[in-house]
Order: sequence, then structure tokens, then C-alpha cells
Amino acid sequence: MAKHRIAVIGLGKISQDQHLPVIDASGEFELAAVVSTRGLSQGGVPSFRTPAELYRAMPEIGIVAVNTPPDVRHAIAREALAAGKDVLLEKPPAATLTELADLEALAEAKKRVLFATWHSRFNPAVEAARTLLAEAGLRSLRIEWRENVKKWHPGQDWVWEPGGFGVFDPGINALSIFTRILPAIPFVRSAELTYPSNRQTPIAAKLVFASADPAAPALTADFDWRETGGETWHMLIETADGRSARLFKGGAALEVDGRVTVEAPSEEYQHIYRHFAGLLDARRSDVDGAPLRLVADAMLVGRRLTTDAFDW
Amino acid sequence: MAKHRIAVIGLGKISQDQHLPVIDASGEFELAAVVSTRGLSQGGVPSFRTPAELYRAMPEIGIVAVNTPPDVRHAIAREALAAGKDVLLEKPPAATLTELADLEALAEAKKRVLFATWHSRFNPAVEAARTLLAEAGLRSLRIEWRENVKKWHPGQDWVWEPGGFGVFDPGINALSIFTRILPAIPFVRSAELTYPSNRQTPIAAKLVFASADPAAPALTADFDWRETGGETWHMLIETADGRSARLFKGGAALEVDGRVTVEAPSEEYQHIYRHFAGLLDARRSDVDGAPLRLVADAMLVGRRLTTDAFDW
Repeated sequence: MAKHRIAVIGLGKISQDQHLPVIDASGEFELAAVVSTRGLSQGGVPSFRTPAELYRAMPEIGIVAVNTPPDVRHAIAREALAAGKDVLLEKPPAATLTELADLEALAEAKKRVLFATWHSRFNPAVEAARTLLAEAGLRSLRIEWRENVKKWHPGQDWVWEPGGFGVFDPGINALSIFTRILPAIPFVRSAELTYPSNRQTPIAAKLVFASADPAAPALTADFDWRETGGETWHMLIETADGRSARLFKGGAALEVDGRVTVEAPSEEYQHIYRHFAGLLDARRSDVDGAPLRLVADAMLVGRRLTTDAFDW
Repeated sequence: MAKHRIAVIGLGKISQDQHLPVIDASGEFELAAVVSTRGLSQGGVPSFRTPAELYRAMPEIGIVAVNTPPDVRHAIAREALAAGKDVLLEKPPAATLTELADLEALAEAKKRVLFATWHSRFNPAVEAARTLLAEAGLRSLRIEWRENVKKWHPGQDWVWEPGGFGVFDPGINALSIFTRILPAIPFVRSAELTYPSNRQTPIAAKLVFASADPAAPALTADFDWRETGGETWHMLIETADGRSARLFKGGAALEVDGRVTVEAPSEEYQHIYRHFAGLLDARRSDVDGAPLRLVADAMLVGRRLTTDAFDW
């Protein structure tokens, strides 16, 4: 079967590190063109400065991956859908919820495939955790997602600008797993958002959730960008039947009662493109706004606290 | 035809001022019971301390209006839908977007009528403004919604608490009209949110919108709670064909090129209950999350500024 010919829009770090090598090694996709406002080229395929130039020059390319920064993602995705393209979106799928709702409606109206990716969901232990909670029930779940912003976003001032998400940039990865594995929808009940005195986005956030689950499990999240002792990307779980579990390494490993039951290399983007191929074959979209909605909800109901100024 | 028998949950100011007198005068509804945690009674009908007591004692009542504060609205609406009731929600319909999405899904699953009311939309000039913009096109629209918080929320400290919305409490009324009359969906492009140094919610907000309208009209909103010279609740409109219009008195009046074309008394709640009767007859829900989504979007992308402390 012929490979899907895809154009990659935006040649920043996530395209270089993940999308391009994964497409290159894929049995299902083939890179047909790139769009780079900076005029970068890649792998010998045609490079265009704007999506409009791509669509004019190579109208036969029906699929694009939009990996630009989130503030321009909506405009580019809208243009692609309007031009009749199927679209894969990096996370977060848009800067605002209204933009995401618009893309969803436009994809449906145009009968295009829209895939809003949440890469953390494609880690190898996520489905095992989901099955565990479905079978054993949930008493409590505590998300601890702590890393050093100076290590993971060195000098990237945009994370501190309005709309830059702050600690919710990694936190939304945790929330994308959380909303996938939980048996019932979680609601933000309260939140504490800690802002450096000289910055516009939080450096730390503590969330307390309620749930539509009648067993009323205790659900909390602790996101912190001030961790200097190594990363912690895990969820501590107590099941209703009395087991202790931990989903760790960002979703790549699961242990139950001290025994590791799943641990495998993280191949998030390989699974993303495999899933996208399935969506294209089935002509089906996959757009879940739940992680972005929880971040917006935390901003709506959160208590703001101020801490020391942050400098690199 | 027999009137719809309805129970009112929550006997605060909005129930006393609007819902109860409007139901009392309605040809379509009849008050059957009330629920008041404070044990208040009303109009000689049975009064219950909790919704559960109402549902046990009078299972034949199939319709409730939920007029409690927004922080408990979701739990009460969820309980009502789960008990098989049709539900009218005061604005805002929930404290968070995830709660609203949950109620929408539950109403659909239970085949119940859910009506998320936005009272400002039921003002007499709103539909005329919508028609004007559809016919004449839009060049610019500027929302100015300014009032004195000390006059309109005297001593109500909850408006300043996390989740209390601040100036978005009146602002969401403007946004509910804006999203109704605009020919295309507006997106929050940027926002400036001004917080008193001793408070958790904004006292003023300036929003700049983008739009899916290819004519790219200039769209802005200016919400301010520090107005001491009388209320301004209006939208200044320039149409694409060169006319100047003003939707004013909170949506009760419209003038075009200096001539008042619509002006009538505001009978928001009479129209709300008439619309609800129509929804009940058609077994159809009416839930539009767009106004709440725009507020959440403004919180997501807004720049926070600090101003003088606010005291009553």
C-alpha cells in the first residue's frame, strides 16, 4: 500500500527531534514537503516559506502536521482544513478553547481528519494503568510532576509570557494521561497557582479535583518547575481494592505493590503516527479538549500566590 | 394545556427578583415546590432543605430551576439530571468548563432537557442587532461594559474570591450577547487583566479578539468595575456598509445612524421561561458554553496587571 504523503509545517525542535525522524522511519508515512518561515530545508524535499505556497505548488499533498508554536497554530490549522487537508496538531492543539472548538467544527464541516495529539498518552504503561483503575477501582491518585525549568526550557522566555502556560506546559502532559486513565471525568475543585513576581505564568501549581465517580476518590496534582534534584513525573495510586501502584517515568512504567508490571522504551511519536494512519484509513478525527480544558479551569478558579522573582 | 410544574432550587436574590415573580405570572409554569438550605418558604408550596428530600417527597415534579451560587451548581444539576429531571441553569451554568461539558453529556445520556440560560441574550434589541450584522457585515465592534461594583455588588466579597469572576461577572453578560450577534466565532487574541493588589479576581479587563470572519473586523471589549459616573452597557458597531450603530441599555435598545430603531422594556426572564417551555415541548436542550469559554480563554492568555487595593 502506498505511503501517506505528508508535509511538516514548522521545523522547530519538536519536528527535528521527533516528527521528521519518525516519519523517515515510518512504514506508513513519507515526507513530501516542509514549510519553514526561516527557509530551512529538510531531507531533499521541497521547502516553502508559507503553507499557502505549499498548497499552490503541491495541491496533491493532502496531509499536514502543524508543529508551530501554539499562538499561530489555530490560524495555520484553519487554513489547512479550509484547503481540504487532513491535519495533525502538536500539543497543545490551540492557544484557547474557542480556537480548538472552531477547528473541531471546521474539520467536521469539511469532512477532514483532525488529530489533536497528546504525546504522553502514547507511553507504554498508560493503557495498563487505565485497565488497572477500571478493574480495581480508585481510592486516591496523586500526580507529582516536578522538573527544573532551567534544564528543560533553558532561556525560553516565551514560557513566561501570557499564554505561555508556565508549569502547565509539562503539567498538561500529566493531565493528558490523567484524563485518559481515570474511570470518570475529573473537575478542578480548587487550585493554587504560584507566580514569580516578575513573570506572567505560574512556576508551580497545586490542584484539587472532584470527580463524577460515586466512590469520590481523592485526586490531586502537584506541578513544580523548581525541582533541582532530578525529574519526578509520576502518579501515586491507591486502588479501591487496597493495592498501591505508581505510574512513573512519565507513563513509560507501572509498578503495582512494589513489582514493576510494565516498563518499556517510550516511543510516543511512533505510536502517534501509527494512530494517525488508522484515523486516516477510517476517515475519523480524534480531538480531546479535556487536558486543555482542565488548565483553563484551573486558571478560572485558581488562587494566585506570588513568590520570588525568576531569572535564568 | 396543563402548566409545567417546576421546583426552584435556591431562594437567593435572583430567584426572589426574577424567577419566582415570572413563574407566578406565567401561563406556562406553576411553582410546585422550593428548596432552600436556609429553610425559607415561598408562596405556600412545600419547602425542602435539600433536592434529595424534594425528589423523595414529590417524585412527580419533573422540572427544576437551579439558581444557587455557581460553585455548587454542578453538583445540584448533576443530581437533578441523574434523578431524571429537566433542568434550567442560571448563569454562569457551571464554575468550570469541564463541569458544563459533563452536564451536557449527562443530559444527552439521560434524554433530559438542559437549558443553560444567558439572560442578557433575551433583551429586545439583541435579535435586531444580529440581523443588522448578518445583512450589513461588520467592520468593527467595541464592547464597553462599565459599572460601579460598590453599587451592583455591595459588600459581596465572594466576587473577589477565586472562581468569583470579578468584572467578568457582568462582562460575561456582554460576551453572551457578543457571541449571539456576531456573524462568525470570536477568539481571544490577547487580554489585559487588572487585579486589585488585595484581591483574587480582576476589577477591569481589556480584550482583543480575532475572528473567523474573512473581513477581519476589529473586535474589542473593555470591562471596568470602577465606573462612578453611571453605568455604560453598550456595544459600538461600524458595519461594513458604513453605518454606525449602538446596541445599548444592556441590549434593550439599538440605534442606527443616530436613530433609535428598537427600544423596549427588558423582560429577560419572561422570555427565558417562554423559551424553556418551547424546549420542554420539543424535548430539546439549549447549552451554549461560548461565553464561559471566552472568559476562560481570557484567563489562559491574559496579561496580569496589579492596581490599587480595593475595599468597599
